[in-house]
Amino acid sequence: MTIRFDRTGLTESSVPALEFADAALRGVGQVTLQNNSFTGLLFLVGIYVGSPSSCLAALVGALTSTATAYLLGLDRALVRAGLYGFNGTLVAIALAFFLRPDPVMWLYVVSAAATSTVATAGLANLLGRNRPGLTAPFILVTWVFVIAVDRFGALHATGMLPTAELPKGATEVVGIVSASTVSEGVLKGIAEIFLQDDTVTGAIFLAGLLVGSRVAGVAAALGALVGVLVGWGLGAPEPAIRLGLFSFNPALTAVALASVFLVLDVRSALYSLLAVVVTAVLFSSVSAALRPIGMPALTAPFVLVTWAFLFAAPASRRLSLR
Amino acid sequence: MTIRFDRTGLTESSVPALEFADAALRGVGQVTLQNNSFTGLLFLVGIYVGSPSSCLAALVGALTSTATAYLLGLDRALVRAGLYGFNGTLVAIALAFFLRPDPVMWLYVVSAAATSTVATAGLANLLGRNRPGLTAPFILVTWVFVIAVDRFGALHATGMLPTAELPKGATEVVGIVSASTVSEGVLKGIAEIFLQDDTVTGAIFLAGLLVGSRVAGVAAALGALVGVLVGWGLGAPEPAIRLGLFSFNPALTAVALASVFLVLDVRSALYSLLAVVVTAVLFSSVSAALRPIGMPALTAPFVLVTWAFLFAAPASRRLSLR
Amino acid sequence: MTIRFDRTGLTESSVPALEFADAALRGVGQVTLQNNSFTGLLFLVGIYVGSPSSCLAALVGALTSTATAYLLGLDRALVRAGLYGFNGTLVAIALAFFLRPDPVMWLYVVSAAATSTVATAGLANLLGRNRPGLTAPFILVTWVFVIAVDRFGALHATGMLPTAELPKGATEVVGIVSASTVSEGVLKGIAEIFLQDDTVTGAIFLAGLLVGSRVAGVAAALGALVGVLVGWGLGAPEPAIRLGLFSFNPALTAVALASVFLVLDVRSALYSLLAVVVTAVLFSSVSAALRPIGMPALTAPFVLVTWAFLFAAPASRRLSLR
Repeated sequence: MTIRFDRTGLTESSVPALEFADAALRGVGQVTLQNNSFTGLLFLVGIYVGSPSSCLAALVGALTSTATAYLLGLDRALVRAGLYGFNGTLVAIALAFFLRPDPVMWLYVVSAAATSTVATAGLANLLGRNRPGLTAPFILVTWVFVIAVDRFGALHATGMLPTAELPKGATEVVGIVSASTVSEGVLKGIAEIFLQDDTVTGAIFLAGLLVGSRVAGVAAALGALVGVLVGWGLGAPEPAIRLGLFSFNPALTAVALASVFLVLDVRSALYSLLAVVVTAVLFSSVSAALRPIGMPALTAPFVLVTWAFLFAAPASRRLSLR
Repeated sequence: MTIRFDRTGLTESSVPALEFADAALRGVGQVTLQNNSFTGLLFLVGIYVGSPSSCLAALVGALTSTATAYLLGLDRALVRAGLYGFNGTLVAIALAFFLRPDPVMWLYVVSAAATSTVATAGLANLLGRNRPGLTAPFILVTWVFVIAVDRFGALHATGMLPTAELPKGATEVVGIVSASTVSEGVLKGIAEIFLQDDTVTGAIFLAGLLVGSRVAGVAAALGALVGVLVGWGLGAPEPAIRLGLFSFNPALTAVALASVFLVLDVRSALYSLLAVVVTAVLFSSVSAALRPIGMPALTAPFVLVTWAFLFAAPASRRLSLR
Repeated sequence: MTIRFDRTGLTESSVPALEFADAALRGVGQVTLQNNSFTGLLFLVGIYVGSPSSCLAALVGALTSTATAYLLGLDRALVRAGLYGFNGTLVAIALAFFLRPDPVMWLYVVSAAATSTVATAGLANLLGRNRPGLTAPFILVTWVFVIAVDRFGALHATGMLPTAELPKGATEVVGIVSASTVSEGVLKGIAEIFLQDDTVTGAIFLAGLLVGSRVAGVAAALGALVGVLVGWGLGAPEPAIRLGLFSFNPALTAVALASVFLVLDVRSALYSLLAVVVTAVLFSSVSAALRPIGMPALTAPFVLVTWAFLFAAPASRRLSLR
């Protein structure tokens, strides 16, 4: 029995179960684009602090989607890097958050997590090289499985679904932004990446990000801060800002562009800044556009903006892709 | 004058009208992915039994879209295989079903069927090789031409549009699933592929499928059955299950994956089974998501799931494309 | 200091400011696919006649998006041809039209125009060669920035948003189409390309188009006329037809297919005619489909139909792309 570690986790093992666990943990880490099983472990700890049932769901999702990838015989290197696990992790957390624990709920969660693996491979084929699918499979599979409940008597939505949707009427009177709005908005924003609304959870997630990459950690914090400031500047409701709703997508956009996909310099930092600002605006847009069908925006703003700015980058002489 | 037949229909003829009729019939057969003019003929018989006016619409649609393809000078082999006819067939049936027979209605139907041919060629270009458009042109063109009626005083929707949309409130009290729900749900599910709700029509369609391919016929029946069982297990309303609403998309997904695109073995059968289950769930999702604009789901669940599972297949070492 | 003109504008200059102004004017001209700075100048004059504040917005949009393209180091030839300016021009006009002049409004407009440049480059990458993005970036960025206002207390929509949305009930009683409906509908249709509803503006735009290309001018007028006739024939409300709502998208489709992308002959003219008719129908569809989220159709019907018919063209032996 051989086991080898490096600073990103297990590099080799003769024990299949260990390799599998490492792949699943990297899947949790890949939610923020970190191929690092220690990051994934810290994220699980953070989720557990915020909500033990979310942590159970995360485990079920990461294990199911990673197992599905092994069963389908998908590219071993990609599976081991967690690239087939992060969408399933998020799908399971979201379904467990938005649906009541009816008897068939966990079967439904497992089906959705397995589907996310297929959707990830299908979308990769459709997008082609150099166009990562990001969390798009999570978003699509979650919308599909949550909205379907509308027609099924054996499953029920919790009251959590429309929380993010403060009406415009409320916008102009509710709340004054203070220093605590900003600090909570940043930390809860990082926590909301996994649908948690706890500052300690956000701090642990930030630690996990810093373990994965110092630049990623700083980018997440600054991205979340910019999201809070955009929400504030444009007059978004204070409770939504405090809850991190205007910062979780910007944090992801900042990590993706500034620390993962672009070579960081002044120009790419400014380019990422514009992307982060647009992400915060797009959160409002997607939330408002989805109101008629009652679905949450999830990380769709992050995905759409990162796609636009990433696909545009090769056309620029002044930006370099990693 | 020479005419030659084989078991899929006419293979060669010196009479242009016969070749054209054969292409149009194959178009009807291609609705279920069967390149077989006898299958198309049986489908027309089945539609006639269910609804003579739908049969007229099917003829108009198949002839218009196939003629458009000839006039545009599209690839002769594809036109002869019916690949430019099946979307127009469905478009015409759907418009004749959802719209009142106002004076301009048939002109509108012919325009829509001709447009479906262009949309089929355009989508093929956009998707590229090895990514079939399936019935996506039918779905898009039908939505476009049906919803447009909302703004036009010379055209009117029939009362058929919102039938599939049973509200959740009704879900939990309406109906108990019995053996007759299952048998009707399977046969009407196959009939609903052409928007018919008649068990005899479904049986004739099944015969047409078996003429095209025994595996396709069995796949359609099993796919429809799984759709019924998923609807039942998740508590969908009994009348919707009995009407075949939960089975027509799953039947198509099963035919497409298990009998047309994947080499059938235990693994691809299980993979197709997951796809069929997801298709049944997605029917609920699409129906609920479209409620604000009052459009029916049509075969969108089949198209989306088949795309996802088909595009994912090349990434798997354990699945082989035909 | 050297300056050279040809009939499409400045061809070379040693003065950067002049080159930049020429690129921005071509951007205004490219709204109707004309790479001609005199056309752009006439368009600005026409907009000024219709609405001085729209003219200011057009200038801000053209300058911002062109400057963003220079700053990003995008392909110089494309920037000089105005291909990164036309979406920003339209975005700025639309936002200034749909939003109240709140203090942060112009900052918002500038951000949106800059974003449109990134979106243009990103979409070009996604679509690949021979698939122009047309005004899709304008449409997407405008929808995103307008609907977002729903959640922001510092920005407000004007009452202009739902004007195009006459309910069906009104359809059947409102108005009788007369010769003045047709003539106004054609000229205002051309004016509505830039969201103006003034016949003199439309006439100046038509002059600008004729300066760019005689075929383009004729195509725009005929396309607008067909749009008016389709709206009339299908019973659309007379005020909407008179306002040019059924003609601005068809005018653009006619210019794009008949004068820019296809070699003009009898076949391509008939093909373009079908596309123009479908565009008028699709205006109704998109307007109705967007009603739940209160967004206007903008030029989405033009983009979708032109994509379908343009992407289908290479499959036809009887149509030649330029």
